[in-house]
Amino acid sequence: MKIHIGPKTVIHPHPVLIIATYSKEGNANMMNAAWGGICCSDPPAVAVALREATLTYHNIIASEAFTVNIPSVDHVREADYAGIASGHEIDKFHVTGLTPVKSEVVNAPYIKEFPFALECKLLKSVKIGLHTQFIGEIIDVIADEDVLNEKGWPSIEKTRAILYGSFGSRAYYSVGENVGKAFSIGKELQG
Amino acid sequence: MKIHIGPKTVIHPHPVLIIATYSKEGNANMMNAAWGGICCSDPPAVAVALREATLTYHNIIASEAFTVNIPSVDHVREADYAGIASGHEIDKFHVTGLTPVKSEVVNAPYIKEFPFALECKLLKSVKIGLHTQFIGEIIDVIADEDVLNEKGWPSIEKTRAILYGSFGSRAYYSVGENVGKAFSIGKELQG
Repeated sequence: MKIHIGPKTVIHPHPVLIIATYSKEGNANMMNAAWGGICCSDPPAVAVALREATLTYHNIIASEAFTVNIPSVDHVREADYAGIASGHEIDKFHVTGLTPVKSEVVNAPYIKEFPFALECKLLKSVKIGLHTQFIGEIIDVIADEDVLNEKGWPSIEKTRAILYGSFGSRAYYSVGENVGKAFSIGKELQG
Repeated sequence: MKIHIGPKTVIHPHPVLIIATYSKEGNANMMNAAWGGICCSDPPAVAVALREATLTYHNIIASEAFTVNIPSVDHVREADYAGIASGHEIDKFHVTGLTPVKSEVVNAPYIKEFPFALECKLLKSVKIGLHTQFIGEIIDVIADEDVLNEKGWPSIEKTRAILYGSFGSRAYYSVGENVGKAFSIGKELQG
């Protein structure tokens, strides 16, 4: 039976995006954001939704740059920690032992231990309500060579990325089985 | 070794969002959009990025409403078909046999066979470039009662949602194993 459950902020699945920035003083910070994704092909762009209470919000406004880092299952603890602790109070890179590396193309660090990162320059910010969306132009993507497929794209089977199940489970999951080829399996329904 | 691979539009994973709308004439359409996600808690809101070439783009402008439907693994073929065929040319509900049901709260249909749908009223549209982001206020969420957890949220283990692996795999995947409790497993790193 279908029932109305109220205006809940839920999709399945959410990605696990670790946003890395520099403060005005040049200190690297990272946070865990489940609310974001690619939003344009030309210019290539990604959006992340942040509250003003976060240090990352202010770092992006000051530096006009950020990176979106994709963790693998090996770093689920570190990814979760980045969402628990506040950069206002603590150096999360120090606690986790992850390494911030200065991007060569934007004024933000990427996380060395993660399989790939989108290096973004702030294109636009859109205040929606409690959250503001920061839309970043993807200037380049830096990736571990060994997670790429034959066409040079990061392969999700090689990155071993994780996903977040929303408040409905409050848990992270690995990627399961391949259940169908995209732009292909649907053709079975064509007459 | 880290290498630059160019400004690719990739995160891992992308969700599989089926956007359903009515045309000016009242015909139901659906499309597959991997580029979207929750973008605000107050007001509760979701963003989807669409090209002007799609029928859905024009339907949203005319009706100021849409639903975001989450398919389960049982409907991976139908979800893929919704991304292959064009609503300008074909009635995708007719071909797939899926059922559009008029929402009681917004001027858009939801898909009866899918576990849950966000019922949205257009709040804002943001032209980025080739894609425009439509930001919808989530007026309500309609869900199958049997996919809810004890707190009334859709559980990803019960919805059996799918994910899209990006152009790096061009494939859909099921959700894998639970690899850690969110807002919890990261505490192991605290001193």
